[in-house]
Amino acid sequence: MAFFSSTEIQQWERFYRGNFINSLSGFKSASLIATVNNDGISNLALFSNIVHIGADPALIGFVNRPREAAPHTLGNIEATGHYTINLIPANLIEQAHQTSAKYADGESEFSAVGLTEEFTVHSKAPFVFESPVKYAMELKEIIPIKFNNTFFVIGSVTGVFADEQILAPDGFLDLEKANIITSLGIDGYYATDKLARYSYAKPGKDLTRID
Amino acid sequence: MAFFSSTEIQQWERFYRGNFINSLSGFKSASLIATVNNDGISNLALFSNIVHIGADPALIGFVNRPREAAPHTLGNIEATGHYTINLIPANLIEQAHQTSAKYADGESEFSAVGLTEEFTVHSKAPFVFESPVKYAMELKEIIPIKFNNTFFVIGSVTGVFADEQILAPDGFLDLEKANIITSLGIDGYYATDKLARYSYAKPGKDLTRID
Repeated sequence: MAFFSSTEIQQWERFYRGNFINSLSGFKSASLIATVNNDGISNLALFSNIVHIGADPALIGFVNRPREAAPHTLGNIEATGHYTINLIPANLIEQAHQTSAKYADGESEFSAVGLTEEFTVHSKAPFVFESPVKYAMELKEIIPIKFNNTFFVIGSVTGVFADEQILAPDGFLDLEKANIITSLGIDGYYATDKLARYSYAKPGKDLTRID
Repeated sequence: MAFFSSTEIQQWERFYRGNFINSLSGFKSASLIATVNNDGISNLALFSNIVHIGADPALIGFVNRPREAAPHTLGNIEATGHYTINLIPANLIEQAHQTSAKYADGESEFSAVGLTEEFTVHSKAPFVFESPVKYAMELKEIIPIKFNNTFFVIGSVTGVFADEQILAPDGFLDLEKANIITSLGIDGYYATDKLARYSYAKPGKDLTRID
């Protein structure tokens, strides 16, 4: 096994280091975040740095890059207080990845990549019609991260669209059944294959498989 | 497709809601965080809410549950400033899941579940010897999340152990080759299967597969 020190990593070429560090933290939940500005122009962007914060209240966070690199999603959320997060099935990977291209201001990624805006009574922001699992979010707090000018955006879940066929009897959403992908690094996309679900762990007691 | 409002979700039974919201945010990077207290007693705990913050400087965050529910990892990090994050291959899932049992104070999860502490010059905290990809972290900031008493813990990567066979020529760590799992919800573990890596997206230009 090789050891790489932070001093060595710091000296690597920028893209090499980016690939390495972005994959180091493990598999991620690449999702499409949809927003709209006050002029009604929508924005759709791929985010992989999404994190569960709590179930009650239902809170989910994501990391937004520095404002100069990725201004639209953050600005629209600040303006409207609302956004949607749309999970990505395997058949939409190319379109999802293509949203990361730098389109001109005023051009919606929805039309640029061929995905469908779905406006509902459940959010000011559109959903991605083609996504089988998606949720509406209300902004709670934007926390600036001083070390690299990124932002930790915390929102509460205000509603969820999900295919009922993936909902297990105990509330678990079996995303694999909807072909939801996981991502790795900046540009890797993976299908999943369930190994097991395990019972609640207790000291000195063997685990049992619940699925 | 079904719609579930936050009002409805709020009324669900606690474990049902926990399973649902924990799976909603998508696939996660379940990892083992190892720490040691000032008396030299180590702690090993399963965390799935880990998020990439930036590559330069290399910053990774995780969400720690409220202090009364999960005091040891947080307390040890506050005391020593150091921790390690160890990725989980498929053959270690049961031991990793078992670390979530509530062991008595002073009992190390390493010995309780049968994993090996690996102390090195690279961290005050031990690594998990059996893990093929693991990294040392130095605490940068602990941000309290006021809405549910959790904590967002930000650290910088000070060093990385990785099997060189999974390191691609462009720096990408192909974790699938080391059988690193991804998790879903509270208790689901999945193998992965690479669908594609795609080139950097540009407006009006077709994506090409790079792997």
